[in-house]
Amino acid sequence: MNTFRPVCWFCGETYEIEPIYTCRRCKGTLDIQYDYKQVFSQAYFQPLASAAGNEIGRFRELLPVWPNQRMITLGEGGTPLIRTNNLFNTGNNQSLFLKLESVNPTLAFKDRPLAVAMTAAVQFGLNEVVCASTGNTGVAAAAYAARAGLRCAIYVPEGTPEEKRSAMEQYGAVLHTVKGHYSDAYRVAEEMAAARQAFNLTSTYMNPYAVEGNKTVAYELAFQLGKVPDWIIVPIGAGPLLSGIYKGFKEMKLAGFTDKLPRMAGVQAEGCAPIVRAFRDEEIDVQPWSDPAQTIASGIADPLITYPADGTRTLSVIRESEGIALAIADEELIRYRRLLAEREGVLAELSSVTAVAAAAQMQQTGLLEQSATIISIVTGHGLKDMSAAINHTKGSV
Amino acid sequence: MNTFRPVCWFCGETYEIEPIYTCRRCKGTLDIQYDYKQVFSQAYFQPLASAAGNEIGRFRELLPVWPNQRMITLGEGGTPLIRTNNLFNTGNNQSLFLKLESVNPTLAFKDRPLAVAMTAAVQFGLNEVVCASTGNTGVAAAAYAARAGLRCAIYVPEGTPEEKRSAMEQYGAVLHTVKGHYSDAYRVAEEMAAARQAFNLTSTYMNPYAVEGNKTVAYELAFQLGKVPDWIIVPIGAGPLLSGIYKGFKEMKLAGFTDKLPRMAGVQAEGCAPIVRAFRDEEIDVQPWSDPAQTIASGIADPLITYPADGTRTLSVIRESEGIALAIADEELIRYRRLLAEREGVLAELSSVTAVAAAAQMQQTGLLEQSATIISIVTGHGLKDMSAAINHTKGSV
Repeated sequence: MNTFRPVCWFCGETYEIEPIYTCRRCKGTLDIQYDYKQVFSQAYFQPLASAAGNEIGRFRELLPVWPNQRMITLGEGGTPLIRTNNLFNTGNNQSLFLKLESVNPTLAFKDRPLAVAMTAAVQFGLNEVVCASTGNTGVAAAAYAARAGLRCAIYVPEGTPEEKRSAMEQYGAVLHTVKGHYSDAYRVAEEMAAARQAFNLTSTYMNPYAVEGNKTVAYELAFQLGKVPDWIIVPIGAGPLLSGIYKGFKEMKLAGFTDKLPRMAGVQAEGCAPIVRAFRDEEIDVQPWSDPAQTIASGIADPLITYPADGTRTLSVIRESEGIALAIADEELIRYRRLLAEREGVLAELSSVTAVAAAAQMQQTGLLEQSATIISIVTGHGLKDMSAAINHTKGSV
Repeated sequence: MNTFRPVCWFCGETYEIEPIYTCRRCKGTLDIQYDYKQVFSQAYFQPLASAAGNEIGRFRELLPVWPNQRMITLGEGGTPLIRTNNLFNTGNNQSLFLKLESVNPTLAFKDRPLAVAMTAAVQFGLNEVVCASTGNTGVAAAAYAARAGLRCAIYVPEGTPEEKRSAMEQYGAVLHTVKGHYSDAYRVAEEMAAARQAFNLTSTYMNPYAVEGNKTVAYELAFQLGKVPDWIIVPIGAGPLLSGIYKGFKEMKLAGFTDKLPRMAGVQAEGCAPIVRAFRDEEIDVQPWSDPAQTIASGIADPLITYPADGTRTLSVIRESEGIALAIADEELIRYRRLLAEREGVLAELSSVTAVAAAAQMQQTGLLEQSATIISIVTGHGLKDMSAAINHTKGSV
């Protein structure tokens, strides 16, 4: 008997374990539900917390893979958690930690969801994967497809940075440039996946199997800290990383491993912030960002044009956690990228820097409790967008 | 009482724990010796092998740091070990694993020695570090100096790749371009360190504290594999990584944790292979490579002009291990870089690819025993030399 199944996150309809992306009844995105009674029938997390080994496969009972399915892995996960020494004002006894998801095989957090999704693709007997991407997802998809021996086609919008295009090609993926923006590439990838019976790995909440990989960040954080942090700050485009992390903590609470949940802060760039706008306006439903996205944080510049419900889903998780959504200006990203490198020795992608700038902003505005423990997720490595950063830094001097 | 001290590797003269680089009697490079009786008085490795946590600081009794010294860390170590699926002929029941040192905070194995050396710099109360570098060492030095809050000056030869120069600058290091080749930068760094009482972090065997960080690769390999591999293949310039790894295994044998030692293979590029030449010619002393270094593997293109004894030291370790030294042609590097990315999903620096091409060559020439377990050390990430690889790949089509 399987211990998991896809369930519509919006209407609750349940589905078989198959390559499926949206609810056939309400078109909502899906979530994976587990038979937690069975998984947690013995103390689940305690032995894992004190065991050797980093691989995310050690949590396989909480990932949507069949018991005998070999995991496709490049050694993702087990990333460093380091405490900031010089960047953050510790006057109120608050401490800021960085979870370096940049130290993953393809240098971004995407390796976790892609490892799980690629394992699911093999589990389903598929020979090809596709995705729409402006960067990190495509690079990770190409690498894991190479590792699994599957064909990989990536649909990139015009203007995708040359470093990332080149990396995808070096891993052997076939690149197709789509005229227009990310949402155009998104649509073409969706059509192609259907036409070719390929597994669609596009980020957002489209692939419910992929999203589950993000939960492993939560398990690792709890093990590394020895407690549940007060705040977790996550850069968000559509937001599956934020939701995945929160789901991981909820599972640990359900299992009796912790009794507390963190508050989730979702961070966007001011030039493309549909979720933050809805949070500030106290709306339930997120609306697409219809102005042109204007930010250097390309990795999270998602206007949610054809799938605003993804933003709604993320916003509801933020609210459930009693968290916040906030936006950062590009000038602050350039400034904090430099500060983070010069004061802590961490070179982060511009999109990732949002989470660090947000920590400072939250502290300055008195949002953080005394003695609070805060985690900023550094989602991607600065060596992946050096040319963008160099251009902008030079421009700003 | 201290449990370690610097000792001349060539003549055995012993020294105090201080910033020292060469034997005052014979000018030889130094090694750190430990009071192993004290360190191993209780079973040392067994509890570490089964414990949670990745940080190299867990081996601190075997690193040259004082008991109460805070380790300077960016979360280095705990790197993935993955088995090749599609690259290596497994006909003879041989298995090839990749140790992904590319998945370190600054994307190269240098983070291990630099973490230890920077901790030593703080321990000695120094305010500044310097190094000569063509790339990875400088990037790591800049990052760890930022983390430690020390000033960092890096002397780079003309022609150092822009990506790496830029990364060093973003971490806040001061770059000085030196006319000429690496050996010229090496000499200037040495003079500057002496003049400014700065700690010299230049790679090679110059800094005996740094070299010790490399031992942690050995400990991790034994824990991850659950045994000692038959062969470990290491890209070598001067060769401190190879020596450090072998020393780590010798320590594990001394402690009674293993009863076997691996054979060490040192790999150079054909266009700059002073150690390989001496190995083939059955010489004891390595001579400098006086022709211009001609290879795309810039990270290991060290002609050892003013310090050929570093090569002699590495060669003696290779021989002690009953290993070999071999050289790879640039065309093979380009070919294996592509194969590694397309078949295993691993994008490696050109210098690192030598270790993978060497594994194939050793198999083809019948050097590997039946059922042998082979480790190739992937020393640096391919995203660090994309422009070099792209130029050469395009040139080769």
